[in-house]
Amino acid sequence: MEKIWLEPIGLVRTKAIGREVSDRGRVSEIILREDLAEALDRIESFSHLLIIFWMHGIPNEERTRKKVHPRGRMDMPLVGVFATRTPYRRNPIGLTLVELLEVRGNILTVRGLDAFDGTPILDIKPFDRWDTAEPVRLPEWRIRLEKEANDKRQ
Amino acid sequence: MEKIWLEPIGLVRTKAIGREVSDRGRVSEIILREDLAEALDRIESFSHLLIIFWMHGIPNEERTRKKVHPRGRMDMPLVGVFATRTPYRRNPIGLTLVELLEVRGNILTVRGLDAFDGTPILDIKPFDRWDTAEPVRLPEWRIRLEKEANDKRQ
Repeated sequence: MEKIWLEPIGLVRTKAIGREVSDRGRVSEIILREDLAEALDRIESFSHLLIIFWMHGIPNEERTRKKVHPRGRMDMPLVGVFATRTPYRRNPIGLTLVELLEVRGNILTVRGLDAFDGTPILDIKPFDRWDTAEPVRLPEWRIRLEKEANDKRQ
Repeated sequence: MEKIWLEPIGLVRTKAIGREVSDRGRVSEIILREDLAEALDRIESFSHLLIIFWMHGIPNEERTRKKVHPRGRMDMPLVGVFATRTPYRRNPIGLTLVELLEVRGNILTVRGLDAFDGTPILDIKPFDRWDTAEPVRLPEWRIRLEKEANDKRQ
């Protein structure tokens, strides 16, 4: 199958480093290419956006993994990469739902983007009602990770 | 900014043609590359998946549009492409939430994938609770399109 080329439409700006990036309350900016600012017109009429980005920190040799332990934890089962959100995947595309806080020219201020400073943005889509499913079934390991995170917060 | 190269991980198989593709009740198959079948391990423990695909039918010259009328309808406002789900976008990446019905080897059977036969698949992600926001704010034009679709169904 033929390869596909993409062009970054902008970059992430954040002061978060290391694990701080995963904090869903964190505010960061998406700096769109100036020639594309017009393509954001009226985006502020949506409260939430889906951000598709390129996890550029993943070396090519890490794209060949087929199975991983979620979060690299050996107490979690070994599962296929497509059954996890690991960045170590064939095409290291990131996908995150964010809250849109502000639009100024070519700059979007968003809450909840778990991407590092300098991450290339591939696409921005408005979040719509059809992007939701309820109820969802999750595996035991995922519920265990969720419970741990909740316990830590309390 | 440098261009990014991606590799299709599989293809869509569907009998749907034309507008039938948008029918969210329709069942289609994702044929993963055989060498990647292992990367689907345990994916059936999730009820829903996010499918990221490449809208290969969009010619390169259509990737430069900055504004569109949603659904090509002149009675809808002219809005920035990133404020719509139009395929005429800088990087024609498709993103759809589907219900996972069956997994057999390298073949996933899913409901609700609005992609044409032969569409290259870029990534498959399990749908998780953090992929949901409630309530969401939508623009007037989007609510109008939704109401029309509901009226038609009744």
